[in-house]
Amino acid sequence: MKRLDEAPRSEAHRENNNWERENHSDTSHNKSPLLADPWKPCRQSRGFVKEWLLKLRCFLGTVCRIEWYGYAALGILTAILSFLMDLSVTKLLRAHQWLYMKLEGNSLLQFFCWTLYPSCLCAVASSFSHHICPFSTGSGIPEVRTMVAGIEMPHYLSLTNMFTKFLGLICTLAAGSTLFLGKVGPFVHLSTMVGSYLSNLCTLIQANKEEKAAGEMLVVAAAVGVASCFGAPISGVLFSVEVMSSHFSLKNYFPCFFSVACGALTFRLFSVWSGDGETLQALFKTNFPTALPFFPLEILLFALLGLLCGAVSRCYLFCHRWILQFTKTNPVLLKILTTEKGLYSGMVVFLLASLTFPHSAGQYMASKYTMKQLLTSLLDSRQWLSQSHNASVQLESEPLLEWSSSGSPIYFSLAVFLLMKLWMLVLACTLPLPAGYFMPVFIYGAAIGRLLGEGVAYVSFTGVTSDQQWASINPGGYALAGAAAFSGAVTHTLSPALLALELTGQFSHAVPILLATLLANALTCSGHCPSFYDALSISKRLPHLPSLIKACPRLPSTPVGQVLRAKAVQLQKAAGPVEVQQAVNTSAEIQIPVVDSHDYGETSG
Amino acid sequence: MKRLDEAPRSEAHRENNNWERENHSDTSHNKSPLLADPWKPCRQSRGFVKEWLLKLRCFLGTVCRIEWYGYAALGILTAILSFLMDLSVTKLLRAHQWLYMKLEGNSLLQFFCWTLYPSCLCAVASSFSHHICPFSTGSGIPEVRTMVAGIEMPHYLSLTNMFTKFLGLICTLAAGSTLFLGKVGPFVHLSTMVGSYLSNLCTLIQANKEEKAAGEMLVVAAAVGVASCFGAPISGVLFSVEVMSSHFSLKNYFPCFFSVACGALTFRLFSVWSGDGETLQALFKTNFPTALPFFPLEILLFALLGLLCGAVSRCYLFCHRWILQFTKTNPVLLKILTTEKGLYSGMVVFLLASLTFPHSAGQYMASKYTMKQLLTSLLDSRQWLSQSHNASVQLESEPLLEWSSSGSPIYFSLAVFLLMKLWMLVLACTLPLPAGYFMPVFIYGAAIGRLLGEGVAYVSFTGVTSDQQWASINPGGYALAGAAAFSGAVTHTLSPALLALELTGQFSHAVPILLATLLANALTCSGHCPSFYDALSISKRLPHLPSLIKACPRLPSTPVGQVLRAKAVQLQKAAGPVEVQQAVNTSAEIQIPVVDSHDYGETSG
Repeated sequence: MKRLDEAPRSEAHRENNNWERENHSDTSHNKSPLLADPWKPCRQSRGFVKEWLLKLRCFLGTVCRIEWYGYAALGILTAILSFLMDLSVTKLLRAHQWLYMKLEGNSLLQFFCWTLYPSCLCAVASSFSHHICPFSTGSGIPEVRTMVAGIEMPHYLSLTNMFTKFLGLICTLAAGSTLFLGKVGPFVHLSTMVGSYLSNLCTLIQANKEEKAAGEMLVVAAAVGVASCFGAPISGVLFSVEVMSSHFSLKNYFPCFFSVACGALTFRLFSVWSGDGETLQALFKTNFPTALPFFPLEILLFALLGLLCGAVSRCYLFCHRWILQFTKTNPVLLKILTTEKGLYSGMVVFLLASLTFPHSAGQYMASKYTMKQLLTSLLDSRQWLSQSHNASVQLESEPLLEWSSSGSPIYFSLAVFLLMKLWMLVLACTLPLPAGYFMPVFIYGAAIGRLLGEGVAYVSFTGVTSDQQWASINPGGYALAGAAAFSGAVTHTLSPALLALELTGQFSHAVPILLATLLANALTCSGHCPSFYDALSISKRLPHLPSLIKACPRLPSTPVGQVLRAKAVQLQKAAGPVEVQQAVNTSAEIQIPVVDSHDYGETSG
Repeated sequence: MKRLDEAPRSEAHRENNNWERENHSDTSHNKSPLLADPWKPCRQSRGFVKEWLLKLRCFLGTVCRIEWYGYAALGILTAILSFLMDLSVTKLLRAHQWLYMKLEGNSLLQFFCWTLYPSCLCAVASSFSHHICPFSTGSGIPEVRTMVAGIEMPHYLSLTNMFTKFLGLICTLAAGSTLFLGKVGPFVHLSTMVGSYLSNLCTLIQANKEEKAAGEMLVVAAAVGVASCFGAPISGVLFSVEVMSSHFSLKNYFPCFFSVACGALTFRLFSVWSGDGETLQALFKTNFPTALPFFPLEILLFALLGLLCGAVSRCYLFCHRWILQFTKTNPVLLKILTTEKGLYSGMVVFLLASLTFPHSAGQYMASKYTMKQLLTSLLDSRQWLSQSHNASVQLESEPLLEWSSSGSPIYFSLAVFLLMKLWMLVLACTLPLPAGYFMPVFIYGAAIGRLLGEGVAYVSFTGVTSDQQWASINPGGYALAGAAAFSGAVTHTLSPALLALELTGQFSHAVPILLATLLANALTCSGHCPSFYDALSISKRLPHLPSLIKACPRLPSTPVGQVLRAKAVQLQKAAGPVEVQQAVNTSAEIQIPVVDSHDYGETSG
């Protein structure tokens, strides 16, 4: 016997829904009939439990509406999922590192350990998603956008998909910085699945069956996905505002914030209780000097960084669109991607892993560190240059990560990192895996910003400017601005600016970060270039009007007449009663299209 | 001769618009006719300037659309206005303080200086707004909301109003903490006036006359108003999202952020150049300990604080609605407020000032400090208790403001402050002055939070809990959460939570602040209690549907039939062609109302 306060965790439960609903509506009107099923066991105890549950529902309903419990549960459940995923991924990454260290001295075995571990994980993730639920691959954000727009795609919200996506994502993330893929996108998708289940549950519990708020729950779930992923509440809401639909209804505003606060709180509390941190801190806490965060003239450098990030993101988006097109048209690749997904993933990851092997090219791109370590090192406020000049400083505080193990200058390492990761990232986007593409782009942007910041620090160090103030420049600030600007430009959003602030808990750089993100966006958005998500929507032929408009800018000026030509009877917007009567007389249809004018050449909204 | 790139700063200009527009559209099609006005002087130079301007317009148009220059100009102009206002107010406040200090020793003269200075300023502000533009009184946010909803109120956007509001607001703010009124509301109104002018200018410059985006500009201007007031970009956008309309169009999202970034940047750069600060810092920079911001168990205390703020805000909103009603119904007050606005303002401020005189009751409520000093002292992370216990600590860092000059405990001072300011604030809301009501509410909330924080610190100090961690509790964090929660509850918004973070540049308390604000809002919003702005909208009979719905919750279920009863012919939503034909035959009207059903008792959206 299923209890009402259980989450609908099984497919079988959904089939029972109809029965339960009928049963339930009976009980809500009249409590005695539930004791009148003589063929079921334990009548007394079932009756007792049901009456108790009804009382609980009444009590819960008096405090606030049932949806609010759903929003709270959504936040808490998503945060728990996020925490469990982080925990598993950390364990798997540590196992890989441990094995690699144990094989120290034998390069061949180290090579196999380095390459085969992520290859196998990714091959497993691909085969798993291929055989169990093919809808679980990719980021999921384009699909969620389409669902928020009102199109029903039940396969994307099924429990099988949730299970596959969760396990597949753990495998993908455990491949680490070799594969260089992230968590956000699939997590937003996972969160919408949880949200859709909770929405069904709320409808089931609610006494008033008329109200249904599945669309609301999806918008809230998108915000919670981002917030639980990083423990960043406000940028989650902003992400939901800007990515999900073209109009944000204020009705969803309070639910979003409520759910997001529950999610962020749970996520942070779990990280405290697990012993990661003693207090509730930001995820990538930085130690920027707050007394002198930056000088007014540096604003110009931040603007330049924004434009640079915009230019690089255009290049990246072009490559991404090209490879999406290529995988759709190349017959060999098309065949492999249709039938041998696991093999393809394994091969590609093997190629990427052998290139990032720390004894080969990997030594120039800091490949032995995890993505978290890479981001932390890029956001460090200390100048790498001064650190390498006087090693004595290094001793008193925790040491910086070594970006160049072979003694080559850090600029070379950063440049190699940027060049190699660009095409690697584009290649990784073709993998049929559950994977997010936001975090890699964020780190890539941080590397761009760091390169500029270290360059400025070098110029001021060699004494081109005699001014003392430039000596205390903070390259970490540039890395943060670069991360926000590049990821904002790639996704055509501004919420990464706030996310960068929330991730680091550093508000001193708010204005330059916002400026860089705006300029990068302005450069990328000019000329109707579709964003990363739009390109995916178009490639997957998802029905999503805004992305279609971005891809075909002349779509809104296509005359409706071209579509309506088949129907003879149309009504002009300015038609009077006589014309309406005439149209009604002429047509046998129930609905008559209303157009701006009868002229076919004219535009109609 | 008016130049095209001038801002339309005079009323006369508006009358010239039609002429210029005609002239302009001539020139854009054909450049020679502008030289063919033989009766005007300086034909050659005028023609040269005009052609040069046309070229400039073409060049500007190629970079981006003309509106974007408008958005940038809006941000920059509003920030300059804000900076100028701050500068004047600081000078006026300093003059008052100087005069008061000079009269040290003579209590009677000090009393007159203390009371007459703000009384005269407020009387001047009231008379000024009464005689020049009566639309300039109050906060302006309810009016701006109504305009954003699509209702045209040209008087509220006139240049006279802008001038009156600007000068009146300077007088109000110069009255200082005696009057205890703020800047945000009128500044949002000022910003929309600037925005409306710039919008007209953009329409004038634009080659394509069809597009008009006055509504967009108003939404952007509301965001800029908040952002330029505090140099807080992101909370400005969030304020615009939640206060202005029931749906936020994503079309306004990028313009909002762009304009807000320009505004915040200009505001902060001005404060650097004026010598206030060496770098670009937050307005009320705090020095919270970032290593251990707070302990998980303190979350419960923050939740309690949120509920407390919610309860107090309900009380405050009740008093506010009562006094609004009272001023509308009491015949004596009504007569005074209609004819003798200056006298009324002067008398009320004299009463408030004599109560806050530092030698009388003012000594128990720290009345000799400005609002900025009060907020800074409330947000201080050091415990006032420990400071008063060991005075030696006080020497090494900057001293705390003395809240209790007569040796009474700080709890007593805070409690007196809270009790007195509640009714003073309600009374100040009746003054016919340009004034904002957000900042006082923010400071009041900070005082509530501080009282709780100091209470907790006292309990941990006296050793009720033996745990060491509670000794290092930070009352400033409670003050910040209280400020956000109380101001959020009074205005029924969540953006104060982000504003609190941006004002202090402190992200470590993001989650508890959000939690407290949500709980306070939940308590206040329950039971369809109208917000501060809603109460003003209803009291001023402004056409604003959402606030009307909050005041009369049964409005949406009123049958449309009650309104349409006069008209005989109605169409049902589900009507087929036959019914449409019948309706068209019967009715002579051009428009036929469509209802859900013919039944009058049924609801219709």
